[in-house]
Parts: sequence; structure tokens; C-alpha cells
Amino acid sequence: MGTAVSGTVTLTPIGHVRGGRQVPDDDGWNNNRARIELDAARFSPDALAGLEAFSHAEIVFLFHAVPDDAVPPERRRPRGNPEWPAVGIFAQRNKDRVNRLGVTICRITAVEGRSLAVEGLDAIDGTPVLDIKPVMRGFLPRGEVVEPSWAGALMRDYW
Amino acid sequence: MGTAVSGTVTLTPIGHVRGGRQVPDDDGWNNNRARIELDAARFSPDALAGLEAFSHAEIVFLFHAVPDDAVPPERRRPRGNPEWPAVGIFAQRNKDRVNRLGVTICRITAVEGRSLAVEGLDAIDGTPVLDIKPVMRGFLPRGEVVEPSWAGALMRDYW
Repeated sequence: MGTAVSGTVTLTPIGHVRGGRQVPDDDGWNNNRARIELDAARFSPDALAGLEAFSHAEIVFLFHAVPDDAVPPERRRPRGNPEWPAVGIFAQRNKDRVNRLGVTICRITAVEGRSLAVEGLDAIDGTPVLDIKPVMRGFLPRGEVVEPSWAGALMRDYW
Repeated sequence: MGTAVSGTVTLTPIGHVRGGRQVPDDDGWNNNRARIELDAARFSPDALAGLEAFSHAEIVFLFHAVPDDAVPPERRRPRGNPEWPAVGIFAQRNKDRVNRLGVTICRITAVEGRSLAVEGLDAIDGTPVLDIKPVMRGFLPRGEVVEPSWAGALMRDYW
């Protein structure tokens, strides 16, 4: 892991998503149950110690099923819906994005050795995981959260 | 950007944090004002279009001031505080972590061309930014958020 001369950043997955959904459908992720298994060659169960005291974890992962040479449009209508505005790639959370990073908060159901069991993670079986962070109330949004109406419509059936 | 044969992931920063704090002190980040400036060689203002309709953005960045060959302990007491338990690196959010990724929600104060003005971002001037995502209510925690008491104590003066 490190910062190369060109300014690129090289990361090594800490583990992978195992189990749960095989196909990245748009909706219905709330009941998806999966495990995040840490790389046994690099981590002991100590790396997850204490996570069982939190209800939720934030998972940083790679949308690995998106081709790594894909060039996402700078601006598009979310889900191609003609009723929604064409917004920039950084004003939406879709997987066809530069650097292919996903960040999702899910529920912790168990911590067992090097395995973290979660519910409601929108990542498929085999997904490389780059980081796990505990969800602390102090890191939730400060101030009222405002969003455009399309964002609420898009999320209606997501979970 | 891509996935190398070894399983590593190479990312290219989309831009950098400009302005704001120069030193990564532990506390008092809430009033930190900075801009995130997109790489002008790769992005037009279109990439940020629509973000002005959101109150908050989630920033994925690199803790670049942490040496890239540092080996974080698997388990430690947050801030070295003897009153708090020694928990795993994935049960805390401190910067001395594998892959050195930070993920923070901050307030959007303006979108101007390729520049996103933010408030309350806990990243210093010059920080490489890997992704920007809009904060949608639908992606906030589903279900009650529970955390250990040390997490609340740690965050008391953070913002």
C-alpha cells in the first residue's frame, strides 16, 4: 500500500464479502445477509475486537463488477429515469463512478473471529472490502439533511 | 485506475482539499472551511452538477500525512486513553489504519465550477480526495444507532 510517484494510490483489500446476493440488482437490499471475512494472512480476530458494541458499521468497498476501464459519464439521469435531472457523477451514488468506491452503512448482526456478519449491505458476494469503520453518532450529519426529491424517490424500494 | 494481478486496487485522486486546517489536531473540526477542487485535467463542472441541492456530502479521502509504510496496531485504546478499552482498528475511526481511508460527512456551503466549498471536513489542506457522494437520507443508518460510551466521550469536542 502506498502513494506512487504518479500520484496514484494503491490499496490492498482487507477482506471480501462472502455470501448474500450474487447479482447487483437496484432494489431490495435491506434483508441481504452476508459476512465480511478479513484476510487471514494479515489479520487476527483482534482487528474486529469491540465492534460488537456497535449496532452499525460503515463498509468501504470496490464495485469490482464494474469494468475498471469504464469511463462513467460526468453527468447522467439517475437510473436513466427521464423524470429525474441529469446530475453529476459526484451528485449521485451509483456504482458507475470514478474509482468505483462504495460506502454503505449496514447493521452488525455478529462478530465471530475474523468474520463480521452484516445485514443490509448493498454489495455482492466476492466484493473486495477496503475498510470497515464503526458508525458513531458523532459522525452522522450535523444539521438538517436536505436532499432533492429525486433522491427520496430513488430510495423508495432500495432497502 | 484498475485492479492489478496481485489483487491490489489502484486509485487516482479526483482532486484535493484546498485551504482550511494545516495540522490534523484531534478536535474542533466543525468550523473548518475548505474547498475540494476537482482535477481540471479530468473533470468539467458537470461532475458536480446537482450537488447544490444537497445539504451534505460524504467525502472519501486519503490520510496522506500518515506514512504509507506505517503498520497500525490491530488493537489499541482510542487516543491512548487508559480509561477506554483497547479495540480493533476496524472498531475505531482513527487515521492510523490500514489503507489510510477517511470517510466524513460535511456540510456543503457552495458549488462553484469544479470547486466544492465545505464546512466541517476533518481533512487538512492538500489531502487527496478519492470520491464525493451526496448524503441521502435513505443511506443514513436504518434502525437505532447503538455505540459504546467511549465513542460518545471521544466525540465530545471533535466538532
